[in-house]
Amino acid sequence: MSRFWSSTLNRLSPYVPGEQAQRSDVIKLNTNEHALPPSSEALEAGKAIDPERLRKYPDPHSKALTKAIADFCKLAEDNVLVANGSDEILAFAWTAFLSDSEQQPAIPAMTYTFYPVWAQLLGNGLHRVPMRENLSIDFEAMSSWSGPVVFPNPNAPTAMAVSLSDIESICASDPDRLVIIDEAYYGFGAKTAAPLIRQFDNLLITRSFSKSHALAGLRVGYALGSRDLIEGLRRVKDSFNSYPVDAHAQTVAAVAISDSDWFEQASATIIENRAELKAGLEGLGFDVLPSEANFLLAKHPQHTGVTLTEKLREAGILVRSWSSEDLLPWVRITVGTKNQQQTLLAELKSILFGA
Amino acid sequence: MSRFWSSTLNRLSPYVPGEQAQRSDVIKLNTNEHALPPSSEALEAGKAIDPERLRKYPDPHSKALTKAIADFCKLAEDNVLVANGSDEILAFAWTAFLSDSEQQPAIPAMTYTFYPVWAQLLGNGLHRVPMRENLSIDFEAMSSWSGPVVFPNPNAPTAMAVSLSDIESICASDPDRLVIIDEAYYGFGAKTAAPLIRQFDNLLITRSFSKSHALAGLRVGYALGSRDLIEGLRRVKDSFNSYPVDAHAQTVAAVAISDSDWFEQASATIIENRAELKAGLEGLGFDVLPSEANFLLAKHPQHTGVTLTEKLREAGILVRSWSSEDLLPWVRITVGTKNQQQTLLAELKSILFGA
Repeated sequence: MSRFWSSTLNRLSPYVPGEQAQRSDVIKLNTNEHALPPSSEALEAGKAIDPERLRKYPDPHSKALTKAIADFCKLAEDNVLVANGSDEILAFAWTAFLSDSEQQPAIPAMTYTFYPVWAQLLGNGLHRVPMRENLSIDFEAMSSWSGPVVFPNPNAPTAMAVSLSDIESICASDPDRLVIIDEAYYGFGAKTAAPLIRQFDNLLITRSFSKSHALAGLRVGYALGSRDLIEGLRRVKDSFNSYPVDAHAQTVAAVAISDSDWFEQASATIIENRAELKAGLEGLGFDVLPSEANFLLAKHPQHTGVTLTEKLREAGILVRSWSSEDLLPWVRITVGTKNQQQTLLAELKSILFGA
Repeated sequence: MSRFWSSTLNRLSPYVPGEQAQRSDVIKLNTNEHALPPSSEALEAGKAIDPERLRKYPDPHSKALTKAIADFCKLAEDNVLVANGSDEILAFAWTAFLSDSEQQPAIPAMTYTFYPVWAQLLGNGLHRVPMRENLSIDFEAMSSWSGPVVFPNPNAPTAMAVSLSDIESICASDPDRLVIIDEAYYGFGAKTAAPLIRQFDNLLITRSFSKSHALAGLRVGYALGSRDLIEGLRRVKDSFNSYPVDAHAQTVAAVAISDSDWFEQASATIIENRAELKAGLEGLGFDVLPSEANFLLAKHPQHTGVTLTEKLREAGILVRSWSSEDLLPWVRITVGTKNQQQTLLAELKSILFGA
């Protein structure tokens, strides 16, 4: 703290990202990266980048990447905005649409913990909608809220998805209500709301290359929405930082999203591995929530998530847990490769039942 | 405009970056990129990046890059914060330190046009200090302002630098006044204020890899300041976007800033070419301001900057001019390679005196 700090700064509680392992020999199943390497075509395009493109400023509008995303999503280019990860897009959306809305935005009580941070930095609070008993989002309660709503689909850290008909209903229920859907975990089974963009101008979707395209290290995200919503985001971006996406990232991401063979095969592998991991955990006595994401939320009747996380860490395996009361029983495990999952399951068996 | 736009969004006038040429055969002297290719060691490090580093989240704290910058600047690591270009750093600084300061920050009347945009988005206005007749910053007037001050050194678009003793005086004049110096054009002759960081905890410096290290396409900038100022910036960053600098950019920038041979030789070349360009322009009758940057601000007694810019554009050469009254006579020309400059001077000669 310092005499130069603004009142905004003094009241901030920054987001704390998941641990990035310093050792390379750990099995890292704690931050929901994709288990497979990114598209090799995309990696090659990154290596082949003309040095002139690094010397000069990048395209501030990421035009080629925007077109590749529009094609992938079957939308027009003016329905797409690219920025530095979907976190940056969500921060822009908070400033553009939620900073002074008459009603606070509603979020599920159990969800991505960056939303309250943006609300603190850029907005004026939040309305938290309690979860249903099975930890799914209470969509009736969300719909009956009279202001904007923000939620991930599938939700994090529960991994459970919302149905497309529920999304259609909430968009239709009030055309003046903004509906922001965070599709960070797109590609692993949940139905995307992207086709509804043509029908509802109150729907904004955010997505990331971090999970679906195995490029968390690249920092590229995008928004999908009506022309007016996208134009609003663009104005915030251009009033904050004109060039958030570098030339290398634009190139790699454009090739990655055009490599549909990679995407289909890699998504199918994650879905297959997820089923194996779920069966394995259930075989060890875990209760596992249904997942449409590349991670599972699981709890064991005899051990808290924190205990299991500590014991797995000693064995060189990172998973995620929380000390808050509502999440204390749970452990979140990223879907890994089959080998990683076998090692994890063997280690859990040893922790639970002895060597 | 849309019913979802916030009042902040409705009042924004976004920054408009300089034109990025679509054709590759133009001579691009309009956006102040470095004339030489970046460090080949840095480019090689980018190509050699392990695909695993793109699959996983990058280091949110850019530790290796932060250390390389601290070494380069002879400061401690906790005096450095890395982010997505110095534009992002300046936006963070506005939120952290200027958003609700009792006094508006003072800026020179003729300066980087992004400052008023940040003031509009993130602050509460600005105090503009008129330039001296020779277009230098009126440092007496800046010092007598009772609030924070923000200025580039060297200034843009005048290219003129402020002396280190003037900077020391303004820092010492009031320990409760924040002094933000934008050193985007570091490396081309102006004295850096970085050594004063150890002495003054009210001094914040921002820098970029865009000009000094020929990496505008990479989007990396950094702040130098006291531990408290850096910690404030970090909290804003971590409340906005945890990972603004991707793994590839962290790697390339760390090698680039460690390649001191490249930096010394490349800076010397720009200074040498700048002298040639200045002499050439003066030989054609231009009035050229003294420059410590990688560009020149010049005016010709018979032609406005806009006229010359249009005629040069027809010949495939891009330079920058403005339609505002104070800058109407002037044209801003980036220092180029010797070949580019000879072509420019020949074309100007033909425009001014006929073929």
